[in-house]
Amino acid sequence: MPKCVLAVIRARTILSSMIKTTEYIVQTQGHCDIHDLTPALRHTLTAVGLKEGHALVFVAGSTAGVTSVEFEPGLVRDIHEFFERLIPEQRDYFHHATWGDDNGSSHLRAALLKPSLTIPFRDGQFMTGTWQQIVLIDFDTRPRQRSIIFQFIGE
Amino acid sequence: MPKCVLAVIRARTILSSMIKTTEYIVQTQGHCDIHDLTPALRHTLTAVGLKEGHALVFVAGSTAGVTSVEFEPGLVRDIHEFFERLIPEQRDYFHHATWGDDNGSSHLRAALLKPSLTIPFRDGQFMTGTWQQIVLIDFDTRPRQRSIIFQFIGE
Amino acid sequence: MPKCVLAVIRARTILSSMIKTTEYIVQTQGHCDIHDLTPALRHTLTAVGLKEGHALVFVAGSTAGVTSVEFEPGLVRDIHEFFERLIPEQRDYFHHATWGDDNGSSHLRAALLKPSLTIPFRDGQFMTGTWQQIVLIDFDTRPRQRSIIFQFIGE
Repeated sequence: MPKCVLAVIRARTILSSMIKTTEYIVQTQGHCDIHDLTPALRHTLTAVGLKEGHALVFVAGSTAGVTSVEFEPGLVRDIHEFFERLIPEQRDYFHHATWGDDNGSSHLRAALLKPSLTIPFRDGQFMTGTWQQIVLIDFDTRPRQRSIIFQFIGE
Repeated sequence: MPKCVLAVIRARTILSSMIKTTEYIVQTQGHCDIHDLTPALRHTLTAVGLKEGHALVFVAGSTAGVTSVEFEPGLVRDIHEFFERLIPEQRDYFHHATWGDDNGSSHLRAALLKPSLTIPFRDGQFMTGTWQQIVLIDFDTRPRQRSIIFQFIGE
Repeated sequence: MPKCVLAVIRARTILSSMIKTTEYIVQTQGHCDIHDLTPALRHTLTAVGLKEGHALVFVAGSTAGVTSVEFEPGLVRDIHEFFERLIPEQRDYFHHATWGDDNGSSHLRAALLKPSLTIPFRDGQFMTGTWQQIVLIDFDTRPRQRSIIFQFIGE
């Protein structure tokens, strides 16, 4: 009987290694500030040691979002301009009346872009395109310290 | 030998408890009706008993979406106004000619917002911000009974 | 002792079968070309043999996106028109100055729609609505051969 208890304990150990949750802190400037999370994400995947599965990237808070983009200065300006055209910062929003806030645009942009992205990996490598980076976009109207969750599930 | 068979059975049991799929029914009014799913989602996570992993929230159907937002009345009005400005309900859409439907705007809005959101949890708690709720937005042009899938994966 | 080692090996085997990563190649025409991935995705789920879990659909590259939609010709035209109205192809984007490219609109549209979608399944069937298909939208300005990742996690 003790031998079989050992077997069960080993099975639990294998299972426990399937999910790894880490936190990554980013200091942002707001106003559609775009941060490349790819180097930190790759580094964490290597440290975690999983080979096949997916990574969930999630930003806590309702005024920022996560997506993928070719991270280059021209496109960064295009993204700024696009969100300013679609949901201008200076417009008067109903949200401002609720708390006396000025970040209604931040909330709308974040609700549209959404706070999570899931990326597959195999052989310990993300299966992204060569020019495809994972980015945080902070839409708030002031600098923020952001907590980004990297959660890896796999084997 | 019987002892080891027992060990395998236990390992299977642990594995089976890693994925839990539940269905949550919401009665909506359509026309950008926004429902806070957070209390039901938290309650289900507690009932399921998983401690670390992620929850997939998915709405079946192509005229509704799921996102996160600070759920307060001002922002709810801002979201209504934003979607009405971006994709107006009363415009004539090609989709209307196909089935004689009037909900082309609902389909476009839902395709843009998408039907799923994934949220990490640890220590049995969602790793969301304090003012970040998980919401269903029903874009259809009539009341609907919506089936929302909550799927938990973890340990 | 050898009997218990056998038990551990069996547990590993069960675990290994929980994640399956496959690649699906699609030839696209760009310019908001919409492809229904649902038949291939269903076929792959059946082949993989998992019963409960979720499928991650991910497109490698930063000029395409994945969403769900009722896949019918009228709505396909509506989606074309919507993206052309929101982010026109012929506008001059800052991205064009960086590489001499002409696909700034493709990058913006893809960053907005995002490259992944997660869909739950149970009893070996996707829990989608009857008229809800999973689609790739290729926003690039030229034909592309696209690598779509289908990753299944479950049991």
